[in-house]
Amino acid sequence: MVRLTRAVDFAASLRYWRPDLSEAENRALFGRFASQHGHNYRLEVTVQGEPDPATGMVMDLKDLKAVIEREITGRFDHRDLNRDTSFFEKVPPTPEHFAQVIQELLRSALGDRLYGVRLRQDEDLWVDVVGEDAS
Amino acid sequence: MVRLTRAVDFAASLRYWRPDLSEAENRALFGRFASQHGHNYRLEVTVQGEPDPATGMVMDLKDLKAVIEREITGRFDHRDLNRDTSFFEKVPPTPEHFAQVIQELLRSALGDRLYGVRLRQDEDLWVDVVGEDAS
Amino acid sequence: MVRLTRAVDFAASLRYWRPDLSEAENRALFGRFASQHGHNYRLEVTVQGEPDPATGMVMDLKDLKAVIEREITGRFDHRDLNRDTSFFEKVPPTPEHFAQVIQELLRSALGDRLYGVRLRQDEDLWVDVVGEDAS
Amino acid sequence: MVRLTRAVDFAASLRYWRPDLSEAENRALFGRFASQHGHNYRLEVTVQGEPDPATGMVMDLKDLKAVIEREITGRFDHRDLNRDTSFFEKVPPTPEHFAQVIQELLRSALGDRLYGVRLRQDEDLWVDVVGEDAS
Amino acid sequence: MVRLTRAVDFAASLRYWRPDLSEAENRALFGRFASQHGHNYRLEVTVQGEPDPATGMVMDLKDLKAVIEREITGRFDHRDLNRDTSFFEKVPPTPEHFAQVIQELLRSALGDRLYGVRLRQDEDLWVDVVGEDAS
Amino acid sequence: MVRLTRAVDFAASLRYWRPDLSEAENRALFGRFASQHGHNYRLEVTVQGEPDPATGMVMDLKDLKAVIEREITGRFDHRDLNRDTSFFEKVPPTPEHFAQVIQELLRSALGDRLYGVRLRQDEDLWVDVVGEDAS
Repeated sequence: MVRLTRAVDFAASLRYWRPDLSEAENRALFGRFASQHGHNYRLEVTVQGEPDPATGMVMDLKDLKAVIEREITGRFDHRDLNRDTSFFEKVPPTPEHFAQVIQELLRSALGDRLYGVRLRQDEDLWVDVVGEDAS
Repeated sequence: MVRLTRAVDFAASLRYWRPDLSEAENRALFGRFASQHGHNYRLEVTVQGEPDPATGMVMDLKDLKAVIEREITGRFDHRDLNRDTSFFEKVPPTPEHFAQVIQELLRSALGDRLYGVRLRQDEDLWVDVVGEDAS
Repeated sequence: MVRLTRAVDFAASLRYWRPDLSEAENRALFGRFASQHGHNYRLEVTVQGEPDPATGMVMDLKDLKAVIEREITGRFDHRDLNRDTSFFEKVPPTPEHFAQVIQELLRSALGDRLYGVRLRQDEDLWVDVVGEDAS
Repeated sequence: MVRLTRAVDFAASLRYWRPDLSEAENRALFGRFASQHGHNYRLEVTVQGEPDPATGMVMDLKDLKAVIEREITGRFDHRDLNRDTSFFEKVPPTPEHFAQVIQELLRSALGDRLYGVRLRQDEDLWVDVVGEDAS
Repeated sequence: MVRLTRAVDFAASLRYWRPDLSEAENRALFGRFASQHGHNYRLEVTVQGEPDPATGMVMDLKDLKAVIEREITGRFDHRDLNRDTSFFEKVPPTPEHFAQVIQELLRSALGDRLYGVRLRQDEDLWVDVVGEDAS
Repeated sequence: MVRLTRAVDFAASLRYWRPDLSEAENRALFGRFASQHGHNYRLEVTVQGEPDPATGMVMDLKDLKAVIEREITGRFDHRDLNRDTSFFEKVPPTPEHFAQVIQELLRSALGDRLYGVRLRQDEDLWVDVVGEDAS
């Protein structure tokens, strides 16, 4: 079994914010993360399988790039995660939640070929979701 | 003459937006950059001089870090550049403008010890301002 | 299940040296590593669990940073691993041993939330300890 | 159980090309990858085991480097993968195939000490082969 | 004066080879570099000027990317530098020569807006050409 | 004029320490840097000139590597800068001083071909010495 990983970069705006809490409560809970800020995210998508004997590829890179563009960067790149998407209306866009959302979107598109994802928020912090996610 | 460079990271939200233009005009002028997005900025601050014979240092790193914290990361880290600061009310926060703003703030604090700044917006794009800036 | 990784950097001095051997024997066994040298270590600490529904976090980053500071960087940063700590009196501070020491210290503090550690000695060499370590 | 990883770099030329197909068919199947191009590959070799109590090492780095030099960089560095080696006469040198070839060569030399390999083709694409490979 | 740098990556095949010399002479002069090999090149293109007050940009990134695509990556990406281009018929594609060729091509397209180029051949070797080149 | 840069890595131990001061005074002046610590240094050596028409090279890389090995890594790699060399008996091995020492050693060996050096102490701190140094 071979695993192939493709990395993509995108840039988004966000804040940690629960609408059921007041501004003071959000500030107390999330500190400076409750302020609008942003990241250059780096997403690593890993697929697995046997290489196709005809092409030597686990999955055609053009197809994989098209899926990532349609499901992830097309939705999140140069967007405000809180206002421009519906995924973080009840939960804040922590890297843990964001990686789970991405894993679910890619699982629907790629099925069992998906091994897992790594979402890097900056050089010093990242999240892995491997296998069936828990959300 | 020796030059010493200290790099710091911060994360901010922004959009390219001119208040004197309509939403349609901003979209036409700036494309996807007119949407709220964000970056992990990396700022490299370079000071120059002769090392102090007693300490071997061009400038004490604690002092340099304190200036960068007070003038730059204290103002811009985990902030919305457009809404939380007054620097981009008339000009959009392109990396060129943002680097000029940073150069001016550090010039006021460091004087001739400042050689210049490099502001990295992502892995593939950065701006240098060296010497007297033009704004 | 989600895994969150936090990376920290520290700088230490060390040599590979067994006190039960002579200088000549240490030189013969460890070569140039028997000389005092140093590294910028990069430590990646991975915790796992379900994100807390209230905060979206596997573990609060402030708490994780406090544990790493107290157990690891507070002990090893800007220290001589051989002379300033008691961990390498009988075994040399190879990256294998050092990573095991770190894993045990963090296991005591974090319990089952700890998934494992990666200790990078330089760009081309690193060690992983995952799960119960063997020391 | 501890895992130690050593990374090495090498530079090779290649094209995706199946001799049983015509030039037009190769172009249709592989696109621009059918043209002669090249990469700075980065290979990460991971061995596992208990550290030797006398040396603190899972495997002596000099021995590991000698194996990698003899089996991998000595064969592939500054070579044309298609013309200078016999591994890609029937299958194109995709990173999946290339990583499997490397895994087999190192498995023969290192046996059960080998945990797996990661072959990075560029910053955004890499392949992992862990455990018994499938070829 | 502000300088803006855009980096792009491409992959090419090459060998150091002078057609006026025999194979033995080429081997003696260039060693292993006379064998067909390849690199992931990273090109950093720097333009300079005053930011346009209307857009805040020294040069529109879309225009800069179009020039780099037309003049550089369109010519050299996934190509054999010796066989697929005419630039290295008399001189070998050392990074020095290759950077000079790139500087000339971009100078013709960008004029005085071009400050210079850096061509990275791998992590440990790069060439800068700034101002009027010497070829 | 073309500039060629070659980077090398080495690992050394050091402390900031002035023998003319007491331990308490050294601690007061240099803080935690007065403790024995270490770094993976990265040195970037830049030479300049016209490429040789016969070889396309500003300087033969084998010769440049031999000079760097003899003058720099042979002296400082896997050494204690304070105890194993005589350069820091009166001045502490700050990156400013260390870069000046390196510049002088390379200037003696390379003459006018040397453009300058960059010494990186870690990811966030580096020093440039360009042209005639001031020591």
